[in-house]
Amino acid sequence: MTETDGTDETALRLRLDLGYDGTDFSGWAVQPGRRTVEGELSGALTTILRAGEPVRLTVAGRTDAGVHARGQVAHADVVEAAYLGLVGRAERAPEEAMLARLRGVLPRDLVVHRVCRAPAGFDARFSATSRRYLYRIADESATRDPLRRNDTVALGGVLDVAAMSEASGRLLGLRDFAAFCRRREGATTTRTLLRYEWRRAADHVVEATVIADAFCHSMVRALVGAVIPVGLGREEIDWPSQVQQDGRRVSQVKVMPAHGLSLEEVTYPPDDELAARAIESRARRD
Amino acid sequence: MTETDGTDETALRLRLDLGYDGTDFSGWAVQPGRRTVEGELSGALTTILRAGEPVRLTVAGRTDAGVHARGQVAHADVVEAAYLGLVGRAERAPEEAMLARLRGVLPRDLVVHRVCRAPAGFDARFSATSRRYLYRIADESATRDPLRRNDTVALGGVLDVAAMSEASGRLLGLRDFAAFCRRREGATTTRTLLRYEWRRAADHVVEATVIADAFCHSMVRALVGAVIPVGLGREEIDWPSQVQQDGRRVSQVKVMPAHGLSLEEVTYPPDDELAARAIESRARRD
Repeated sequence: MTETDGTDETALRLRLDLGYDGTDFSGWAVQPGRRTVEGELSGALTTILRAGEPVRLTVAGRTDAGVHARGQVAHADVVEAAYLGLVGRAERAPEEAMLARLRGVLPRDLVVHRVCRAPAGFDARFSATSRRYLYRIADESATRDPLRRNDTVALGGVLDVAAMSEASGRLLGLRDFAAFCRRREGATTTRTLLRYEWRRAADHVVEATVIADAFCHSMVRALVGAVIPVGLGREEIDWPSQVQQDGRRVSQVKVMPAHGLSLEEVTYPPDDELAARAIESRARRD
Repeated sequence: MTETDGTDETALRLRLDLGYDGTDFSGWAVQPGRRTVEGELSGALTTILRAGEPVRLTVAGRTDAGVHARGQVAHADVVEAAYLGLVGRAERAPEEAMLARLRGVLPRDLVVHRVCRAPAGFDARFSATSRRYLYRIADESATRDPLRRNDTVALGGVLDVAAMSEASGRLLGLRDFAAFCRRREGATTTRTLLRYEWRRAADHVVEATVIADAFCHSMVRALVGAVIPVGLGREEIDWPSQVQQDGRRVSQVKVMPAHGLSLEEVTYPPDDELAARAIESRARRD
């Protein structure tokens, strides 16, 4: 619990679990004149809670324009009285009342799955222990499904999924991923890649699952782009890990299109470790 | 092979396998001033083949506005010389040449998977032996996926899938489905329901698979609407089959929304039975 500036109103931190179709959003982060997920969600919360100024959000994964999410997590600090006031005369919990109000206000491409009081020490970004992403590619052995055209990238050629999984496995662990990151002054590019696997799904679409403690900008799309030449037989299985070890971005590693990517899940430690985890993450990221 | 009227040009029947996102189409059948699948596809074929008049199509399943397809089949009679002329100087089969040209011309929500010369006696509509449809429902125990909002119907309550499958099983066989059909003067409503099953998919969405030799208008959506009250515990397991036996449409059976429905597959008999099957179907449908 914190207090809002200049007033006496008790603040409350809410955790929001949400999903969105990134197609018509200019990414997560608010940008003037652009339709963004943060902008839409903040606007909805501000309206519902009749807040004096825009409700600010902190998110686990700041997705780029066109990237989707099924398991995004955010937090917002709101005035407790306004939140409790949503219940009205209906006999329901404020969580349910807010969920119903959000569904009434939000556009169809943005869905809040769950609202709850965040446990003490919870920070949607810094308390997270891992992020899981999914990348979908329809190569020539998959039937193109027009219903999935917005979350699946079409690719010429046929991918060797076993070779890709082997190449991906050689990238696991605590490493400097500078070769797959857009460099930012003073920021570390060291991350722990926990899982990176490929499989052919029931509809023959090739899917990558990528899990790390955190990702730097465009890292998942570059990791996918690094392994595709292996799948097409143009590079050896060891090539992506050699690029990683060289530590320099190379033109053969394409940053893959945004629309194939979706943030599927964010994980957090048990409640009593949330605050410690947040302190640790902040220290490491600086 | 047939001959076109008044000219000397040899005609050729093509089979086209296709899929579409029905969201932005006013159904399959051409309607003046509306965007339809038939209209878009006929327009593309007419352009590519430089045909003097619009290429006409015959389809296996005349889907309604908003209904999708992953496994639709159509045929078109075209001038053979125009078709063979598509090859140009490239060393590829006319099937491949036409597929590539179609991909260049068609909108993103309409995909032709395959083009081939139809075997003798083939009629996309009347030679078909069965149609398989899929219906998707996200009840309250499924997470709503904004990326699937266009092919999944959201429903309040939690569905009892086992009860629904049992109720559906009692509708199988050769029956008069008048209670689930929009009546049309002089047309039979007798069909053979070959399979009607429910399952909860990996994403917890409830999916119905419905196969029959053929369907009358809005029949799949009414069959789904008949079983949902059973899934919600509002009607007994035997109720849908009682409605069927009574043979009258009842208000408790809702024709479910179009966007949950997709035509997944059309099956045909072996080539040497195609013509006989078409004659038999025409006779029975009249």
